[in-house]
Amino acid sequence: MLDFTHDPAAASWVASANAPDTDFPLQNLPYARLRRRGSQADWRIGVAIGDQVLDLRLAAAQGRWSSAVQVLLAPLAQGDLNALMAQPVERRRQLRHALFEALREGSPQAAVLASALLPQADVEYALPARVGDYTDFYAGIHHAEAVGRLFRPDNPLLPNYKWVPIGYHGRASSLVVSGTPVRRPWGQRKGPNDAVPTFAPSQRVDHELELALWVGPGNALGDPIPLAQAEQHLFGVGLLNDWSARDIQPWEYQPLGPFLAKNFASTVSPWIVTWEALAPFRGPLERPADDSPSLPYLESAANRSQGALDIQLEVWLTPAGGEAQRLATSNARHLYWTAAQLLTHHASNGCNLQPGDLLGTGTISGPKPEQAGSLLELTQGGKQPITLANGAQRTFLQDGDELSLRAHAERPGARRIGWGDCAGRITPAASA
Amino acid sequence: MLDFTHDPAAASWVASANAPDTDFPLQNLPYARLRRRGSQADWRIGVAIGDQVLDLRLAAAQGRWSSAVQVLLAPLAQGDLNALMAQPVERRRQLRHALFEALREGSPQAAVLASALLPQADVEYALPARVGDYTDFYAGIHHAEAVGRLFRPDNPLLPNYKWVPIGYHGRASSLVVSGTPVRRPWGQRKGPNDAVPTFAPSQRVDHELELALWVGPGNALGDPIPLAQAEQHLFGVGLLNDWSARDIQPWEYQPLGPFLAKNFASTVSPWIVTWEALAPFRGPLERPADDSPSLPYLESAANRSQGALDIQLEVWLTPAGGEAQRLATSNARHLYWTAAQLLTHHASNGCNLQPGDLLGTGTISGPKPEQAGSLLELTQGGKQPITLANGAQRTFLQDGDELSLRAHAERPGARRIGWGDCAGRITPAASA
Repeated sequence: MLDFTHDPAAASWVASANAPDTDFPLQNLPYARLRRRGSQADWRIGVAIGDQVLDLRLAAAQGRWSSAVQVLLAPLAQGDLNALMAQPVERRRQLRHALFEALREGSPQAAVLASALLPQADVEYALPARVGDYTDFYAGIHHAEAVGRLFRPDNPLLPNYKWVPIGYHGRASSLVVSGTPVRRPWGQRKGPNDAVPTFAPSQRVDHELELALWVGPGNALGDPIPLAQAEQHLFGVGLLNDWSARDIQPWEYQPLGPFLAKNFASTVSPWIVTWEALAPFRGPLERPADDSPSLPYLESAANRSQGALDIQLEVWLTPAGGEAQRLATSNARHLYWTAAQLLTHHASNGCNLQPGDLLGTGTISGPKPEQAGSLLELTQGGKQPITLANGAQRTFLQDGDELSLRAHAERPGARRIGWGDCAGRITPAASA
Repeated sequence: MLDFTHDPAAASWVASANAPDTDFPLQNLPYARLRRRGSQADWRIGVAIGDQVLDLRLAAAQGRWSSAVQVLLAPLAQGDLNALMAQPVERRRQLRHALFEALREGSPQAAVLASALLPQADVEYALPARVGDYTDFYAGIHHAEAVGRLFRPDNPLLPNYKWVPIGYHGRASSLVVSGTPVRRPWGQRKGPNDAVPTFAPSQRVDHELELALWVGPGNALGDPIPLAQAEQHLFGVGLLNDWSARDIQPWEYQPLGPFLAKNFASTVSPWIVTWEALAPFRGPLERPADDSPSLPYLESAANRSQGALDIQLEVWLTPAGGEAQRLATSNARHLYWTAAQLLTHHASNGCNLQPGDLLGTGTISGPKPEQAGSLLELTQGGKQPITLANGAQRTFLQDGDELSLRAHAERPGARRIGWGDCAGRITPAASA
C-alpha cells in the first residue's frame, strides 16, 4: 500500500539521506540492532538514515512522540525488535509514519533528534532479532534447475518443484550478523572413486545469494494462514548468505536433506527493510505461460499481479589483500514463489510461525549464467574456475576471501532504497 | 559413573518412591517444568519422587541447602531448566547428590520438605526447557532398513548410513509437551497414479518412537566437541514422538528432506531423566561384527563398550472410548549410533549446540516386526491393517486416537527407573 512515506520527493533534515545513491533515504527506514562500536552498552534498535543511525534508545528518551508511538518505541530502546514484529501491521505502519515525520525536512523534532544520531561508521551490529526457527526455501527456480542439471542433465527439476514450495529447516543457533568471520568447516566427504569417506576441512565452501524474510505476528499452532492474509505476517526483508560446503552436502544429504553442509554458519544483513517500505517495488509473478496454476491455497489474482519483489541483487568477492569485484547480479523477481506463498505454505499444515522467525528464499539465480547466486553454478560444479581481477583463480572460496551480498530496489517514480552489506570472511579450519 | 545415588537399596521417606514398580524411585530424580493444575502460578521445575513431585520453588525456599546448591536451585525455582543444563557436569551432579540426600529415608529435611510435595495427579506440565534448535537424527537402523525396504527392496540402506549419523533440523516452535492435542494436518499429496497433487487433510498420520536427548553446556560456534567429551554435554533423556504425515512426506521431501510432513507437532515427555541417573544402564554398541569401524572422530573404545543405553520402550494406542493396548516394544540399544556420537557429529563442523537444544534419536525399531516404532512399519506402508482389541482396524491414526510412548530401564543390581508417559491425542483437521 503506497502512502506519503513513499513520496520520492520527500527529503530529510539528515543531509546524507538525500544523496541520490544512498541505500538509506527517508523512504527506507530499515531497522537493525546495534550499539556504538567497542562500547559495552546495551544493544538497542536503530533506524538507518543516510550515513547515520537514529538510535531509538536515545530517540525514545529525547524525542516527542504520541503515547501510542512511545509504547512501540519502548522495547526497541531495549534492543527488542521481536516486540515490534509481533505488532499488527497497522501499528508497525504507525511507527513508520512517526519516524518519517520526525526525520523529514522541516520536522520540529530535528534539533532534539540530531543528538540521537550515530554515524554508521561508528556502530557495530548484532543479529537484528531473536530467531526462534530458521527455514530455508528453494524458490529460486533457475538455481534449482542449474544445480539439478549438474546431477540430472535430462531432468533437472524434480516433479514436485512447481507444486510444492520446497523448503527445509535450517539452524538458528549458527545465524550470524554481517561481519562475523566464518570458520571453514570440517566434514565427511566421499568422491565417486573413493572406497571410503574421509573427514577433513571442506574444500568447497560456497555462498548462496538469498533474501531473508522476517516473520511478523505469525499464527497459533494448528491454525493456517490464508494467502490473502500472508503479507500481514511479513515484517520485512534482509539479505541472507546461506554458506554451503559442497563436498559435505552430496555425501550426507540422502535421504533427509542438507545438515552439516549448511549449519556451520548463515549470515544475515544487519538491516531489515520493512514490508511497508517495499510497496513501490512489487510486481507480477514471473512464470512460464504454460505452467499450471498453483493449488488453490497458493493461488490468488493479487499474488499473481503484485506478489513478487523487484529487488536487484549483487554478489561481491574480495580476496585477502585484493580488490572487491562483482561475481554476479540477479533479481528477486526470478523467484518461482512469492514471499506470501512461502509463508502460507509453511503454515498450511498448522505449523506455527512466530515473530522473528526467518524464512530464506533459497538461492536467487537469474536465467543467465552470469546471474548465478553461487559458485557451484558459476564454476559448473568446480569444473570451470573463474579468474579474479588479480589473476588468481577460484572454484570455491579460499581462506581470507570476503564474500558480500548487496541489494537495492529502484523504479521510475520511486526513491531508490538499499540494504547495505551482508558480508563474511572465511577463516581457516579448526586444527586437527 | 556410578556413585551412592545408584545404590539399589536406598529408600526414600516418600513412601510411594519405594514401590517396586514406580517409575520414580529415589535413584531417578528426573526434572520437569510444572505447576498445580489449573492454577495461574508461575511455572517452576519439579523433581519426580514416587507419585509426588518435589516443587523446587517451595523446596528452595523451605529447605536447608548449601550455598552452592542454593545457587543451582534459584533458577529452577523460577522454572528455568536451561540454567541447570548450562552447568558443568560436576555441578549438575552436586545437585543430584543434594536432592538424593534430602529425599533419602532418614533425611533431617523430611519434615520441612514434606510441605514442598505435590501429588503428580494434581500438576500440569509445560515444555521442560526453552529449545533453541531441535535436530532429528535417523539412528534407528532397523527403522531405516524397514522404511528403505518399502521404497527400495533390494537396497534398503543408503551407502552413507553406516558412515554418517544422518540427521536433519526439525521445528522447535511446534514442540509440545505430553498431553497436548495434535491437530491432523492438511497437506499436499500425490499418489503414483494421480495426474496432479491435491491439498487435503492427511490420511496417514503416524507416530515415531524416539528418545529426546537434551543438550547440556554445548560449544561455541566453530569449535567441535571431541567424542571423549561428548557425554559432558548430554543433560538427560526424555521421550519423543515425532508425529509424521506419511502421505505428505513422499511428495515433498525431494531433494531437501522432510518439512511439513513433520513440523505440525512433535511431543516430548515432561520428565527428563538425567544422564547421571542412566549410569547403571549403559552397554556396548550393538553392531554387526563385519561393519567397518567408524571414522576416527566417531570412534573410541569407551564408546564401543559403554556408549549405548539399555532402555526398554513401549508404544500404546488408546482409541476414543477404548482400552489402551500395546502396539510395540523396543529398546534403545538397537540404535546404530550412540548419543555421544550423534552429538559429536553434530558439532564436528563447528555448529554450536546450546543448553536446551533437543536431539531426537530417530525412530527406534528393533530387529523383529513387532518391535516397530511406527505404524508405517507395523502395517507395511498401510497395506496390512492391524486389528485392535475392540475389533477396529488401523493402518494409520484416526481422530480421537491417543498414542502414548513409555520407557523404563532395569537391570540386575540396579533400581528400575522410568519416564512416565509421552502422550498425544489426534484431533480433527482444521475446517476447509
